[in-house]
This record gives sequence, C-alpha cells and structure tokens, in this order.
Amino acid sequence: LTGESAGAEISRLSFNQITADHLGLADLAEGCADAGIGWLGAWRHKLEPGAAELIRSAGLRVSSLCRGGFFPAGTSGDRRRREEDNRRAVEEAAELGTDVLVLVCGGAPGSELEPARAMVAEGIERLVPHAAAAGVRLAIEPLHPMMLVERSVIVTLAQANTIAERFDPGEVGVIIDVYHVWWDPELEREIARAGERILGYHVSDWLVPTTDLLAGRGMMGEGTIDLRRIRGMVERAGYDGPIEVEVINPALAELSRDALIAGVREAYLGYA
Amino acid sequence: LTGESAGAEISRLSFNQITADHLGLADLAEGCADAGIGWLGAWRHKLEPGAAELIRSAGLRVSSLCRGGFFPAGTSGDRRRREEDNRRAVEEAAELGTDVLVLVCGGAPGSELEPARAMVAEGIERLVPHAAAAGVRLAIEPLHPMMLVERSVIVTLAQANTIAERFDPGEVGVIIDVYHVWWDPELEREIARAGERILGYHVSDWLVPTTDLLAGRGMMGEGTIDLRRIRGMVERAGYDGPIEVEVINPALAELSRDALIAGVREAYLGYA
Repeated sequence: LTGESAGAEISRLSFNQITADHLGLADLAEGCADAGIGWLGAWRHKLEPGAAELIRSAGLRVSSLCRGGFFPAGTSGDRRRREEDNRRAVEEAAELGTDVLVLVCGGAPGSELEPARAMVAEGIERLVPHAAAAGVRLAIEPLHPMMLVERSVIVTLAQANTIAERFDPGEVGVIIDVYHVWWDPELEREIARAGERILGYHVSDWLVPTTDLLAGRGMMGEGTIDLRRIRGMVERAGYDGPIEVEVINPALAELSRDALIAGVREAYLGYA
Repeated sequence: LTGESAGAEISRLSFNQITADHLGLADLAEGCADAGIGWLGAWRHKLEPGAAELIRSAGLRVSSLCRGGFFPAGTSGDRRRREEDNRRAVEEAAELGTDVLVLVCGGAPGSELEPARAMVAEGIERLVPHAAAAGVRLAIEPLHPMMLVERSVIVTLAQANTIAERFDPGEVGVIIDVYHVWWDPELEREIARAGERILGYHVSDWLVPTTDLLAGRGMMGEGTIDLRRIRGMVERAGYDGPIEVEVINPALAELSRDALIAGVREAYLGYA
C-alpha cells in the first residue's frame, strides 16, 4: 500500500480557482505557471472572454469546469432556465478543453427531498445527450450532508454512484471531494464501486472547530482528514488524473498571490 | 398513512432538559407539570441530589438519560475512566426510573476513524452486562456527520443499527433524532430495520442558514425537516413511546420559562 504513504506527484496538482476567488484569471494563471503547476480547476463565475486562450497560452490545462447542476426548481420555468444554463455550461467546458463538467446538483425547494432527488436524476438524463455530443462528461459531486438544503440533495457517494450507473461510464461519473465524503462509513466501498467513473479528486481539510458550513475549509494538513488513506482508495479504484486543491475560505484572500500558490503547493506535497 | 399528517398526542411530549439549559431542574419540572407535560428528557449535568424524587413528586416520568458514551480515547487510562463514568451513568438512569441511557459515542482522537469506531463497539460491549443487570437499555444515537470529530464517529443510523444488532433488543437499541438523520437517503430503510430497537425519537428543526454546528437548531416548524414524514416512518416501525423535544439553541435562554414551555408545546402540537 505504498500509495497511501507516498506524496502525490506535483504533475497531478490542479489549482482550483475558488481557492483564489479574490484573484482574476490572468493573475492566477500566470502565478500557477510560474510555480510549475500544470492544471487549473475552473469556475464559471471566474471566466472572462478569451479565457480558454489565456489559459492555454499560460501553458495550463483545465481539469474540470465547475459548475452545472442545481436541477430542482419550484416551477417549470425555473427548471427550463436551469436546463438552458446547464447546456451553456457544457459548451463552456468544451471550449476550455476539459471533458469534465462538475455538477453541484442543487438543494431542496420546499423541504421535500424525494421530489428534489427525482428532479436531479431527470435533469441529468435530459442533459446527457447534449453533453455526450460535446464530448463532455457529467461529474456528479456529492456534497456534505450539512449542505443539503442550499446546495445538494445528493449527499453520499452511494447516491451519486446510483445515478451515474444509469448511464455509460463515458457519459456520467462522479467527483470525490474529501471534504464532502470523508465522514462516510461506506467510503471505501463506494470509491471502489465508482471505479472508472471517478472523474476528479478534490482535496482540502476539515477544521476543528468548523465555524462556517460553506467557507470554513482548511488547507491540507490543517485538519482531521486522513488524506493519504483516501487517496489510496481512489488510486486503487484506478484514478490517476489531476488532484484539485479546492479550499473555500475567505482567510486565503489575505495572502499575496505567490504566497497562496506556494502554500497550496507545499500543503499538496506534504499532505495530499 | 394518516400517521403522517395527524399531530402527535400531547401525552407523548417529553421536554428534553437541554432545550432549557439555562433553567434548574426544579424550575423546569414545575413548569412542565403546570403545562400538562408528562415526560422529561434528563441530562446528567442538569441533575442534582434528590433529582429523582423531585421529578417524581412533580408527577413527571423520565423518558431517557443523556448521556453515556465518548468511548474512543487516546490512552488506556482515559478509556478506563470513561468506562467508570459510563457505569455511573447507567446507575443514574436506573435511579431516575428510566430504562434508556442515550449514548453519544464520541469523536475521533487523532483523526483515525476506523480505530475510533472499533473502540465504540468495544466500549458498548463492555458496558452491556452492567446495563442489563441494572435494567437499562443502551441507546446509540447517530449524530450528524458534521459532528464527527468532536462528538460521534457514529454518523448514520445504519452504523448504529449494525452495532445494536450484535446484542439482544432488550439490551441495545438506537435513538432517532431527526436533526441528525433527516438528510440520509437510507433513512426509511434504516428506521424500518431498527424496528423494536427504537428506544427514543427526538425532534427539532434544521435552520437555513445554520450558523452553528452544535447549537444552531430550530424549533419544530421553523426549519426544513419534514417532521411528520419521519414520524410516520418511526411509527410504522412500531415506536409509540415519548417524543423528546431537544432544541439546542442559546437564543431560547432569552425566553421566560413559561413562554419557552408554551412555545415547545405549541410547536410540538403544530409540527411534530
């Protein structure tokens, strides 16, 4: 089980844009390139006209685009608007040269979980043909159960796997973000089950105490997640792609660009 | 499925002491009795010499004692001290006239989940003979996954059921607290599985946004949990015992005793 104790290769490090939400794309891309980081995890709200060319010319590749999803909606008009937005997200992913669109599936309007969960499955089913035609795979990301109402009724990897398995592995898979799934007693089994459907692996850490349900995440090594154990599971399941560092915490905006990037690099090499 | 829409009987309402953590036992017991509430959910830190007699003379019964548990510990000395404390908790439950000791199983020292989970199972196994001899059943309460590190490595009802099933149903069961389990996609299945092992049912509500991981709970009706749907599951599984109102929120201390008790009663009748 050497994979569990050895550090991850620097070549797999992907800097997720939300980790530097205070920086513009050009600034971040330049900093990553200077630091020898080869991948970028992109967020739609951080893109700008010419983003694809900018990223390419900095020598970076895009590991995924975040995010599509938010399928449950209270009215058919809202559902149609979200469907259109998800089709645009697919097109933006293709334009950025990534074949992975991360799906944050959406919370529960009106507190009814089962109807919302059904809307997620239906929404993915409707999006698949469009995504497949564009060569983009849909990656269902289960979020931590504490994020159920506002962000995702998909809260376990088992749920994500069950939906993904309705489709071809080349069309729908899952994202494994340690922050969202590390607590799960079924984690090892469900990671093995996901297998070739693992389309991304995200790292950060769980802080004690956690003072913010969304933006209270720590840098790898600052918290309680046994990161190397989980990476071992993911690698034994066959995933050897980019590892995105996705740390949502406003305190990171206090660092200079280069200090933040150096900190991410160091934490990745030391703990991921 | 009339059980899902009808209100719960007032005779089943149990006022959990932590809902009024700012009140002394005598004050709370008097207020509950005056309001026609027949049950009290007791917490060890709120008891005092003569508590059992005080509760009895107010005409109240104790639905459960909270809490034993906190089994994982970093040293054998700590484990032994916790074992002794758990035996005292069993004796206190018996003295209060309740046969239910709630177990908050304890978090993960040193971030290692599997060893901690093993210590929970071992700790329960060591406590069972003592509890059985005292006529007290051990009730494993799974807590919300966001409470894993500090309070409980048992975060799903499936985990609690799996441990409980090693023992006689008269010795070990589970507590179902909506706040901790409502997000679980396997909830209905696991409640049915628990069946006669359901030793308590606790209600409160999930607030949006939730601003405190421990003490940010809402009164029934203030949040997003479909309480009557879950009560329907619990009743179909055969549970018809007390329903504890357990709302941990410091804002409740701003209410007068009688306003708080009236509010609990009203929320229980309206939403539980």
